[in-house]
Amino acid sequence: MAPPPADAPASALVLFSGGQDSTTCLGHALTHYGRVETVGFNYGQRHEVELKCRHRVRAAIADRFPAWAARLGPDHEIDISSFGAIGETALTSDAEIVMMESGLPSTFVPGRNLVFFVYAAALAHRRGLNVLVGGMCETDYSGYPDCRDETLQALENAIRLGTEVPFTIDTPLMWLSKAESWALADKLGGADFVDLIREETHTCYRGDHVTKHAWGYGCGQCPACELRAKGYHEWCAR
Amino acid sequence: MAPPPADAPASALVLFSGGQDSTTCLGHALTHYGRVETVGFNYGQRHEVELKCRHRVRAAIADRFPAWAARLGPDHEIDISSFGAIGETALTSDAEIVMMESGLPSTFVPGRNLVFFVYAAALAHRRGLNVLVGGMCETDYSGYPDCRDETLQALENAIRLGTEVPFTIDTPLMWLSKAESWALADKLGGADFVDLIREETHTCYRGDHVTKHAWGYGCGQCPACELRAKGYHEWCAR
Repeated sequence: MAPPPADAPASALVLFSGGQDSTTCLGHALTHYGRVETVGFNYGQRHEVELKCRHRVRAAIADRFPAWAARLGPDHEIDISSFGAIGETALTSDAEIVMMESGLPSTFVPGRNLVFFVYAAALAHRRGLNVLVGGMCETDYSGYPDCRDETLQALENAIRLGTEVPFTIDTPLMWLSKAESWALADKLGGADFVDLIREETHTCYRGDHVTKHAWGYGCGQCPACELRAKGYHEWCAR
Repeated sequence: MAPPPADAPASALVLFSGGQDSTTCLGHALTHYGRVETVGFNYGQRHEVELKCRHRVRAAIADRFPAWAARLGPDHEIDISSFGAIGETALTSDAEIVMMESGLPSTFVPGRNLVFFVYAAALAHRRGLNVLVGGMCETDYSGYPDCRDETLQALENAIRLGTEVPFTIDTPLMWLSKAESWALADKLGGADFVDLIREETHTCYRGDHVTKHAWGYGCGQCPACELRAKGYHEWCAR
């Protein structure tokens, strides 16, 4: 085992789904940390297209951002489909399985971000990385309590105590609106990075990566597309 | 989703490996909570024999303890082999993979109990159970920081915030010596329960469930057997 020493230079593991938010986080990490790796979680509820976007975003960064590419280390993928499978466990009371407005089925299980960070901490420990970066956000509050800053601060504390490594959880989007996230991407990597996010990342709940808009690909009608489009247009209007 | 309401009668999900400690915890839960279910984690590092013991212990309780059997609900098994697999991830520095004195390989990854409880909380949420019971113990301190009371209190806080359900983590063995754990088993279920633990549970790191001793089966020489034997003899000498 090779836990990073307390005085190690900051190095980061980014929770990276290939979406807009985690790609912005990757740009943030590549700007602020000397060594950066990425981890993706396959939990059986994500669209195949989003997993493909992970590789396309990393390849585009390697192609178009040489200074970032020099800091970008390996990608890791972890299968946590058994976590999603808990949603298939019988309920004690009868309950209909329905699709909720968020696009998630009622088989959804809570605490997903807790799992993500605990796995990420174990992997970061293994890889000698000391900052865990995630794109959680309270501002456009999704209603998921595991996205909240208070939750992630408590989890950071539990992870530090449970591993005896002073890991930091860094959530650069926590207090930003979607418009401010586009502005952050522009600040980090300029118009080229905004273009990369528009073209290579995926957000649409319905998995549509064919229909093109100014803000990127998507059905344009699901809640995720609406949020992304609204933020983009607000940012453009500034 | 059916999270337990705040005023629900206490009901428990026991982290149950089929070992001495978690079987004692199961007896504790069946004494204190009205409805009890069990969960086992397969993480690719546990001896097959221990997984078999899970079913034998539950069957023995159903046979010999009618009052407990009436409270004992279903068993669940969750595959988290992907967590163990993180230990196969390349280290950034060269390090030899060796068997450590504890019986664990150097591919061991930290934070296992964090994963156990986060998964257990998701399952308990699904099943409408509100107490998570685990056999972690600080007294015969194993050196694993994720067994410490302070860690589990921090994790309880993170899980409460991240799920918005007031889960309680109950660790009845936290401050007991191994001798006191045998005494607790005796108090909970008398000599019959002590006999059940001696005969049906498994602790040995080497997976020996053939060689018989007064305190149960095991190689008698690995650290786990030594601890179990020492505690048993201390309890008997009282």
